[in-house]
Amino acid sequence: MAATSAAVATDRIFNFSAGPAVLPESVIEQAQKDLWNIFDSGIGIMEHSHRGKVFDRVIEEAEADCRTIANISNDYAVLFLQGGATTQFGQIPMNFLSPDKVADYPNTGEWTTKAIKDAKIFGKVNVPFDGATENFVRVPSDADLAGKLSPEATYLHYCSNNTIFGTRYLMPPKTTAPLICDASSEMFSRPIDIEKHALIYAGAQKNLGPSGVTLVIIRKDFAATANKNLMAMMSYANHIENGSRYNTPPTFGIYFMGLVFKWILEQGGLGNIEKRNATKANLIYDAIDESEGFFIGHSRSECRSHMNVTFRARTPELDALFLKEAAKNRMDGLKGHRSTGGIRASIYNAFPVAGCEALAQLMRDFAARNG
Amino acid sequence: MAATSAAVATDRIFNFSAGPAVLPESVIEQAQKDLWNIFDSGIGIMEHSHRGKVFDRVIEEAEADCRTIANISNDYAVLFLQGGATTQFGQIPMNFLSPDKVADYPNTGEWTTKAIKDAKIFGKVNVPFDGATENFVRVPSDADLAGKLSPEATYLHYCSNNTIFGTRYLMPPKTTAPLICDASSEMFSRPIDIEKHALIYAGAQKNLGPSGVTLVIIRKDFAATANKNLMAMMSYANHIENGSRYNTPPTFGIYFMGLVFKWILEQGGLGNIEKRNATKANLIYDAIDESEGFFIGHSRSECRSHMNVTFRARTPELDALFLKEAAKNRMDGLKGHRSTGGIRASIYNAFPVAGCEALAQLMRDFAARNG
Repeated sequence: MAATSAAVATDRIFNFSAGPAVLPESVIEQAQKDLWNIFDSGIGIMEHSHRGKVFDRVIEEAEADCRTIANISNDYAVLFLQGGATTQFGQIPMNFLSPDKVADYPNTGEWTTKAIKDAKIFGKVNVPFDGATENFVRVPSDADLAGKLSPEATYLHYCSNNTIFGTRYLMPPKTTAPLICDASSEMFSRPIDIEKHALIYAGAQKNLGPSGVTLVIIRKDFAATANKNLMAMMSYANHIENGSRYNTPPTFGIYFMGLVFKWILEQGGLGNIEKRNATKANLIYDAIDESEGFFIGHSRSECRSHMNVTFRARTPELDALFLKEAAKNRMDGLKGHRSTGGIRASIYNAFPVAGCEALAQLMRDFAARNG
Repeated sequence: MAATSAAVATDRIFNFSAGPAVLPESVIEQAQKDLWNIFDSGIGIMEHSHRGKVFDRVIEEAEADCRTIANISNDYAVLFLQGGATTQFGQIPMNFLSPDKVADYPNTGEWTTKAIKDAKIFGKVNVPFDGATENFVRVPSDADLAGKLSPEATYLHYCSNNTIFGTRYLMPPKTTAPLICDASSEMFSRPIDIEKHALIYAGAQKNLGPSGVTLVIIRKDFAATANKNLMAMMSYANHIENGSRYNTPPTFGIYFMGLVFKWILEQGGLGNIEKRNATKANLIYDAIDESEGFFIGHSRSECRSHMNVTFRARTPELDALFLKEAAKNRMDGLKGHRSTGGIRASIYNAFPVAGCEALAQLMRDFAARNG
């Protein structure tokens, strides 16, 4: 098992999966050891009580490192919840909407579409921008939104990076309402201005760890405005009061996320991470742009995601052939989402530069041979 | 790391934790390997897409093995959800109650107390038995319940094993209403009659795997009676329709639970498991009963749990001294729950017989020295 921590272990391949996705190899190796016996306690990490000293240390360090990474003040609670971003789609309006209240939801893809559907159960929804008519090739600019936001919005909900369509906001949208961000597919891939937000959430399975744990950063005074008399597990106030331990939390997921936080700090933090991610993304975008139309990018260039690079070859037959050649070259997970087709390279924080170089090289070779 | 699969690995101790709890060592060893590279795919189990072929195999085998273990027919869906039993406390009444409907909730401990609290948000609750007045030393008999159930109950909810108080139902309570069981702390520790139930749920972290995944077995025609227009993640019908993959499920937890299912089958199934659990529990109960009042069991003898053995020494000082000696003898997790005090030995499926023998021996020695 184990093997080396080199960029390319011989028994592992380049994993371009959109999520669950590639994780830092040094972190996996640490987890392999701790599954059996952590901190020399004689008990594996999954087997420790969530109220014991070992897990106290794990969750306290995870929270502290998270605060360090993004400079999160004590005005905010850092929560480790369950149910993925999709649970947040419902939990947010359950807490903050009601039939007499309205929230703004710019629609930039499949996930915001689902978030809107859940929000409508609890209150009024205003959609100031709907990218569906142009197959979600871009996110709105502030000019697109100007004049279309609800003056009385309880909050504005946006998705900062759209995994399926490969678009992202360069900056959070401008609004006077409390800002809520679904950052699932780009959390901690670049610096994030916490103070601009009332609530930020992210499923772990892109940049932060295994699926099954959701990072929620919420301003405490915003949480205090929530509806009352909610079922216990849907109440942010309840989770804040109990430090994410009202019930048994996903202890292994929190442990693993904590190790990933330490790994992010070892990389020099979000500034360094952002630079490396830009280098990686540009390797592939350059190969698209230099292909003279052999490969076509999905996103408008001003909205290009650095996490999910979406493109297609001239024909679906060439897409299929390309995916076959990629598989032969030890690259997996490149097939586009079922709702877009084509090719998608998801290159989260832990994805190695060498994998982007290899993909770009294959794209150039393939275009030369089939152009 | 790794070491042997013997009952007592030299670098591991006896872990009596109530949950998260001890897991089968052979399963942990398998997981250590698969974290790095599963099925020779070149990708670790946590890093595979939940819609790829590797995870297809993992979840399909987990469901099939679960059905084999408990003889679950196709009238029932087997779901792998998130949020623990505590989320089910709210999800159940959200789906099946309304202000004009009533459900029966016998109260047998802290968990049913919390379930009742959530249920009252959505509809009427009838409590036909309340063990609080006698500090939950027993569960109700059918005679206790007779005449006290609601004739029109939408369902009856009970907790088959009470982790904190160490009591259990020998048989499910008699009712004509659809029966819902919180089996979290004893799931698959003994044969279970699925057909008697409309819904059975269990957080994984006692007998089934790591925390963060909840096993839900639900009769499909019962699920079809649920309220409409629910947020997507709270709808059983939605999870059934999508085979637990409406969103990204907790893939590692499901994988691990699947390995535990295979381990249960290797042990010869629930009949064998039940016998071994009885042997284990009786080792400790015998030590209590033979101590001539030095140790006092919490549960009435007819309701004694085979998963959580709760007792105390004559004085709190002796409890504390006993816990110290246990720790010196490589036994951890024996402190009683904060709401009961005393001593609790949680001895789930994966807990070795040798650990029960060691505890019983220490109890006898301790009583002889301090009696």
